Amino acid sequence: MSTMPVLSDEELSPEAAAVFADIRATRKTEFVNNFWRVLAHDPVALKRTWESVRQVMAPGALDPLTKELLYVAVSVANNCEYCIRSHTAAARAKGMSDAQFMELVAVVGMAAETNRIATALQVPVDAAFRPATDAPFNQV
Amino acid sequence: MSTMPVLSDEELSPEAAAVFADIRATRKTEFVNNFWRVLAHDPVALKRTWESVRQVMAPGALDPLTKELLYVAVSVANNCEYCIRSHTAAARAKGMSDAQFMELVAVVGMAAETNRIATALQVPVDAAFRPATDAPFNQV
Amino acid sequence: MSTMPVLSDEELSPEAAAVFADIRATRKTEFVNNFWRVLAHDPVALKRTWESVRQVMAPGALDPLTKELLYVAVSVANNCEYCIRSHTAAARAKGMSDAQFMELVAVVGMAAETNRIATALQVPVDAAFRPATDAPFNQV
Amino acid sequence: MSTMPVLSDEELSPEAAAVFADIRATRKTEFVNNFWRVLAHDPVALKRTWESVRQVMAPGALDPLTKELLYVAVSVANNCEYCIRSHTAAARAKGMSDAQFMELVAVVGMAAETNRIATALQVPVDAAFRPATDAPFNQV
Amino acid sequence: MSTMPVLSDEELSPEAAAVFADIRATRKTEFVNNFWRVLAHDPVALKRTWESVRQVMAPGALDPLTKELLYVAVSVANNCEYCIRSHTAAARAKGMSDAQFMELVAVVGMAAETNRIATALQVPVDAAFRPATDAPFNQV
Amino acid sequence: MSTMPVLSDEELSPEAAAVFADIRATRKTEFVNNFWRVLAHDPVALKRTWESVRQVMAPGALDPLTKELLYVAVSVANNCEYCIRSHTAAARAKGMSDAQFMELVAVVGMAAETNRIATALQVPVDAAFRPATDAPFNQV
Repeated sequence: MSTMPVLSDEELSPEAAAVFADIRATRKTEFVNNFWRVLAHDPVALKRTWESVRQVMAPGALDPLTKELLYVAVSVANNCEYCIRSHTAAARAKGMSDAQFMELVAVVGMAAETNRIATALQVPVDAAFRPATDAPFNQV
Repeated sequence: MSTMPVLSDEELSPEAAAVFADIRATRKTEFVNNFWRVLAHDPVALKRTWESVRQVMAPGALDPLTKELLYVAVSVANNCEYCIRSHTAAARAKGMSDAQFMELVAVVGMAAETNRIATALQVPVDAAFRPATDAPFNQV
Repeated sequence: MSTMPVLSDEELSPEAAAVFADIRATRKTEFVNNFWRVLAHDPVALKRTWESVRQVMAPGALDPLTKELLYVAVSVANNCEYCIRSHTAAARAKGMSDAQFMELVAVVGMAAETNRIATALQVPVDAAFRPATDAPFNQV
Repeated sequence: MSTMPVLSDEELSPEAAAVFADIRATRKTEFVNNFWRVLAHDPVALKRTWESVRQVMAPGALDPLTKELLYVAVSVANNCEYCIRSHTAAARAKGMSDAQFMELVAVVGMAAETNRIATALQVPVDAAFRPATDAPFNQV
Repeated sequence: MSTMPVLSDEELSPEAAAVFADIRATRKTEFVNNFWRVLAHDPVALKRTWESVRQVMAPGALDPLTKELLYVAVSVANNCEYCIRSHTAAARAKGMSDAQFMELVAVVGMAAETNRIATALQVPVDAAFRPATDAPFNQV
Repeated sequence: MSTMPVLSDEELSPEAAAVFADIRATRKTEFVNNFWRVLAHDPVALKRTWESVRQVMAPGALDPLTKELLYVAVSVANNCEYCIRSHTAAARAKGMSDAQFMELVAVVGMAAETNRIATALQVPVDAAFRPATDAPFNQV
């Protein structure tokens, strides 16, 4: 079904297998989802993407659940079914309740509506929303 | 600049003026931003949209800052400059720090990347990510 | 299949059941489609969305068929299969012919093409297309 | 400003000049907007795109104003400022009133909202919205 | 499944049949894929679209494989499964290797990420990236 | 103008300054464009994004110019002005001619058109375009 075959553990290159080992160790589960099993055809991309995701989604100024909610919201806006389902599952595993999910859906829908209204009306940005002028470094 | 003129308070219909009064009372400020001043050409849409936004963004299972972060993230994904600027300002007013904003940007970017990779590869959804089967009501 | 279960009539909260009664009375049919059956998990969102749709799609300066055609066109641009199918069905129920649908498809496709060409070339907006200057209320 | 220069009449190739003559004759005006003046760098694309637009936007099963409304709606969904401004101007020239424009904006916004809600919830398509089965020609 | 039936050869109008004959002669195969079989309900659109695609995808300043890679990349960004699958097949037929496809996927993903980061940060365009000023023809 | 200030060299953290040194060494120019100067507020994201871009855009199975063309095409589809301008400049620096750019624009436009037509018509994927069945690893 995928545009490149889904690889089983036996079909992995050594470089890809090493990334899978890290995914399993980090997530503390044997399960490795299909996204990584297809991306494994390009072990360099697999390693780069996994390490980037791990870094971006780690706790920081935003907590992990908030990051997952943002991930789900963007995946809806970008219309990626795989990502909606996998990150909804991840958000639930991090504690997202049904009520929180339904509120997320309402915010995503409302934002989409006002985004399009503002675009249709070509609303000029209020001076109050612009940051105090900094002289951009590379501009005249 | 906008596709319909930005209305001053003096140009509002009585129905639009009533909505502006509610915006001011709710937000506890005289300032009414341009989005509402253009939408005011359609007082029914103005009232409906304002009341919907107020309802959706009220505290609930998700706190108001998380909702603003989601609004900003969706506005980036939908590429609406007005909305990015107005809701970034709103998020800052609700306490978003620079570090939180930069992490939001990183999550939105990373989600966009993996969204497109999953789409390009047409990755099949793992059985583990599908909810236990319910028989959809209106399907055969 | 859906990220929240499709609810049967028996599973509805009293608030959701009241909205379903209004949908049935307004549409003069017992059939309530799955969109509302999933959204019913959030009865407040269900009521708000239904009442907004009913208001927006009512006859006004644009007739109901034209509004449905616009709805279909936007759903195609946003790539929402559910919405394409449900609003195509609604448009047919309001009289859309095969020939009208095929012309809609041609316009949507042509607009997508010239949208991207204009974006790629970053074509400057002709002075003739800008409205006579109004001084935006909230700008310097 | 544009990624390729805006061409004046004097800078056109003979092939591009012939297309401009047709644009002027068809539209009964000397004015040729910037879209064509940038696209004129590729006279073959200029001719193909102009003839396609003329064919698609001609009166048919849908009237020219309805087609312009669809064009504006799609341009909003695709977020093309040039196209929103040029086709809003075209729609006004064909009789679109302020009230009709504001209703178009409301429909586009509402469709965007429900599009994203249906996507977030992954609502299964009702059997009633699927056409009676035809055996697809190229499928097993 | 499709919103208009997939037409067999026997169901084609004479105008559509003529286009199919040209598709077969140009591609040197009896196979005509479903895209054309559904679009054939509008023989004028069928002829225009086929001739446009044939013209745009012909060898020119860019070779046919590069054009197919661009087509796949745009189809991913626009999230069109049919187009991803049909143009991936076309690209493979023109020589695209697995390694080339995986690199295309990486570029599309990376571009999506930096596109959203630049949009979120509203990065001002560097003077160095703007072309030397030309006086736009239709602007004040 | 940007949502976070554009940083001059003097304002960089040591971690960000180290990345700038690598950008300058790799590109063999003192010029560092605004994208990096805004992203520098998050030195970890700056380093990750720069190293990812450098890796993805390096010569491989696809040559650097083809990768830049793909980057431009995706940036158009995602409607990112900054990215269109910066990567068009990069593509020109790598040898893209005016004729090649205009053909790229034509392909992007044509793909957008047929993407939307295929979506509107919900064209079923031909069996010929599906890969020989592999049993997906994580599915029933």
